[in-house]
Amino acid sequence: MSAPRFRRAALIGIGLIGSSLARVLRRDSPDTTIVACARTAETLAAARRLEIADETTDDPAAAVDGADLVVVATPLSAYAEIGRRIAPALRPGAIVTDVGSVKAAAVRALAPHVPPEVAFVPGHPVAGTEHSGPESGFAELFRDRWCILTPLPQTPPAALAAIAGLWEDAGMRIATMAAEHHDKVLAVTSHLPHLIAYTIVGTATDLGHDLQSEVVAYSAGGFRDFTRIAASDPVMWRDIFLSNREAVLELLQRFSEDLTALQRAIRRGDGDILYDWFVRTRAIRRSIIEAKQA
Amino acid sequence: MSAPRFRRAALIGIGLIGSSLARVLRRDSPDTTIVACARTAETLAAARRLEIADETTDDPAAAVDGADLVVVATPLSAYAEIGRRIAPALRPGAIVTDVGSVKAAAVRALAPHVPPEVAFVPGHPVAGTEHSGPESGFAELFRDRWCILTPLPQTPPAALAAIAGLWEDAGMRIATMAAEHHDKVLAVTSHLPHLIAYTIVGTATDLGHDLQSEVVAYSAGGFRDFTRIAASDPVMWRDIFLSNREAVLELLQRFSEDLTALQRAIRRGDGDILYDWFVRTRAIRRSIIEAKQA
Repeated sequence: MSAPRFRRAALIGIGLIGSSLARVLRRDSPDTTIVACARTAETLAAARRLEIADETTDDPAAAVDGADLVVVATPLSAYAEIGRRIAPALRPGAIVTDVGSVKAAAVRALAPHVPPEVAFVPGHPVAGTEHSGPESGFAELFRDRWCILTPLPQTPPAALAAIAGLWEDAGMRIATMAAEHHDKVLAVTSHLPHLIAYTIVGTATDLGHDLQSEVVAYSAGGFRDFTRIAASDPVMWRDIFLSNREAVLELLQRFSEDLTALQRAIRRGDGDILYDWFVRTRAIRRSIIEAKQA
Repeated sequence: MSAPRFRRAALIGIGLIGSSLARVLRRDSPDTTIVACARTAETLAAARRLEIADETTDDPAAAVDGADLVVVATPLSAYAEIGRRIAPALRPGAIVTDVGSVKAAAVRALAPHVPPEVAFVPGHPVAGTEHSGPESGFAELFRDRWCILTPLPQTPPAALAAIAGLWEDAGMRIATMAAEHHDKVLAVTSHLPHLIAYTIVGTATDLGHDLQSEVVAYSAGGFRDFTRIAASDPVMWRDIFLSNREAVLELLQRFSEDLTALQRAIRRGDGDILYDWFVRTRAIRRSIIEAKQA
């Protein structure tokens, strides 16, 4: 067994992503001490019961004390407060990374708190399920998915390589890009689809009670996929929409224009517009299958 | 082996649903003669190659000649022409059924052509994948899904029971309701979700080329589910939207209002509205899981 990549890893937030990473470290790097930090005693007890942490604390500063790796894995709205609290306790030479879904906002909230002698590597392992909490994690969550890293100009290359290695060990493929570009890409691939799914499931729940129970019973069609997406963590997603506001709103505008065009085609009975549109969308699915993401 | 439920089954249309039903009959009812009817020689050759038809023809009238079961399984826009062509060839005592996703339109197109001595049982096996064509079918497609039958006042109870039995043999659960009610329920569970998925995937393809290829590469999030839905058969879905126009447009109006409300909350930074909405949508997922459809 080679020396562990990190000796002491502080996981601030031990939900789906944090606990999955803890499981990877447990499996592949038994000499790494895992410190789990969470707000509630209940979550910390779960982490101990699941044996995915060697130490637990509700104090972010205590968690990062002596750690050479700090992974911020909470909802985005907690970042600034966490940054403020861990700043004085960070060890020189430590690496801070995060797993947030909006990178510009993550950088804005955390970077000002990271001292010059500590490296900051903003990251986003693009993986997840509709489940949340430490019980829902599993080590294979990251396998064959992309991890997007958005290093800052001052991020040391060695720190970037170390975090890339961490996620590669978890089975991920690594991409590097600017934070703002990441946020535009994810607005399309993830944020807008989630907003739409949340909307449509909400629309359905507003139907009369009789119809609603039938909607539930016969939800075999596309609606079932939407309900799965719309069951994702409410706090995490509230924070994503508020943090990536500009990109999401711009995309929503395009989406609404397109939906209006299809609505008009339906109202006018213009089947050709619908057919041409549907043929075009089929092609992008093929591209994705060819890109081995499906 | 008991006597087959049907001696001679004419499948008008041998795509995903038609060919899956053929596979069920092949497996469970080897004494039933299967006649496959399709427009193209290519599809008919596929049906023969797959050994899911005993006889093939491109003439609907020839297909139904002597059949005691006629299953119309083409896109909805072909129904009226098929009805017109099979009417003179239908055997007294035969049962005509269909598998269309919009029942009021199916009844409007087919019922006028069905002679009084032939039974008509409109039906909708709520099952499918994003694939189409005879190669994509499989016998287990229907297992544990719902089949909704929308009998007419003149539908003989024995014919209704026979068609219910056909789909029960395929593993389906049976529900019976009015055609118009079916169309309202399916507008929510299936038609609107498909329209939204088609829209959002189209919106994404209109982005600049660089962004588009990244969208394809990092489509791990909700977008992947949408591309799957938006890869469904273009002709079938064009016909569904045009055939269920009123229900789809009414629902689209509600959806657009809801989306505008969430858009406004994002623009104003009102996290409580988003959070409350997302908590509410989570609950409907639980109902579906409890209803064993997930």
